[in-house]
This record gives sequence, C-alpha cells and structure tokens, in this order.
Amino acid sequence: MSNPYEKAHELSSVLKESSEFKLLEELHAKVKADSQAKQMLDNFRAIQIELQQKQMQGMELTDEEIQKAQSVFELVQQQELISQLMQAEQRMSQLIGDLNRIIAEPLEKLYGEGE
Amino acid sequence: MSNPYEKAHELSSVLKESSEFKLLEELHAKVKADSQAKQMLDNFRAIQIELQQKQMQGMELTDEEIQKAQSVFELVQQQELISQLMQAEQRMSQLIGDLNRIIAEPLEKLYGEGE
Ligand SMILES: [Ca+2]
Ligand SMILES: [Ca+2]
Repeated sequence: MSNPYEKAHELSSVLKESSEFKLLEELHAKVKADSQAKQMLDNFRAIQIELQQKQMQGMELTDEEIQKAQSVFELVQQQELISQLMQAEQRMSQLIGDLNRIIAEPLEKLYGEGE
Repeated sequence: MSNPYEKAHELSSVLKESSEFKLLEELHAKVKADSQAKQMLDNFRAIQIELQQKQMQGMELTDEEIQKAQSVFELVQQQELISQLMQAEQRMSQLIGDLNRIIAEPLEKLYGEGE
C-alpha cells in the first residue's frame, strides 16, 4: 500500500504529461517568444494584481479603474495567443479544482454526515 | 498511462486508509459520542465562525470578543478529546497542504521559471 505522498507524486507526474498541461506549456512558451503579446499580457496582469490588492485592502474601485480594466481585458482577449493561453489556464484551474474535490472526498464525507 | 482523474481517485483512497485519516475518523466518532465534549466543541466552533465572518466583513473585533474567544479556546484545549481532535485536524490540514504543493509542482515550475 503506497502512502499519500507517493500517490501525490504520481498524480503530479500524470498531470505534467496531461494534454491540458502540455497545451498550457506550449502556449506559455509561444507568448514568451512573442514580445508584443508578452508585454500586453504583463500589462494586463499588473493591472489585475493592482486592483485585486486594492479590493483586498477593502478599498472600492473607481468607475475609471473598472472601465480601464475592462478595456484592457477586451484588448487582450482579441489577441489570439493570449486568448488561447487564458482559456488553457482556466481549463487547468478547473482540472485542479476537480482533483482537489476528489482528493478531499473522505474529509467531505466525515464532516458532512451531520454532526 | 492513467489520467489525472484516475490518479486523484487513487490518492483519495490512499488518504482514506492513511493513519492520519483513521485517527481523525476515530476522534471524530469519540467526540460525537460524548455529548459534553460535543457541545463544548460546537460552542467553540460557533464562536470561531461568528468572529471570522465579522473579520471578513472588515469589522474589527472588540477586546471582549477576543478575550471571550481566547477563554473558550483555553477551555476546549483542556478537554483531552477535543485537544486530540484539533491536533489531528491540524495534522490532516498540513498533509493536505503538502499534497497540494506536490501536485501543483509542474505549474509552480512553469510560472516560476522567470517570465
Ligand atoms: Ca460528522
Ligand atoms: Ca514562465
């Protein structure tokens, strides 16, 4: 009987070989090699992080900030490569979420059976 | 080659058979069967949730609230069974954290290699 750590390493290897990860890796490399796309994405992410930090500090975003973020998002969405990368990231994020739910099932059952 | 979902189910099964989970399950059942311990723990958790919700809403806790939470915490810590359960829960939480870090290693490497 293997232990949880061994199994987690096996899962990590399988995830690394998965089509979802391979696609993400490929798109990541393509964006990195395209300086225009790279700069556009870095700019978008910097704005995202800035606004998230403001929100986490309990500050409200101004209409201008929301509008700016939306227009930059629309811009990056039109860039084919970035759009593909973002879709691949969302897909990976869903996959990781699914895996976490599956792994935590025993705990879910233990705590969900009605105290 | 198995897929990530199959491997996650395997990990879930191994986790369910682990000594860490078995201990948690055992202590959970013992607390459930001890109505005094059960009530004490429910009371503590209710206070915890109430204070967490206040904090999440950006409200500051009063000195009295902090003091009340601390004294209830000290009280439950003295209850042997609850103290054991909380330690087992913390141990499980660390284990799950370790597993998540192992699984996410390929992504960590992809995003951490310097953009
Ligand atoms: Ca239960
Ligand atoms: Ca990178």
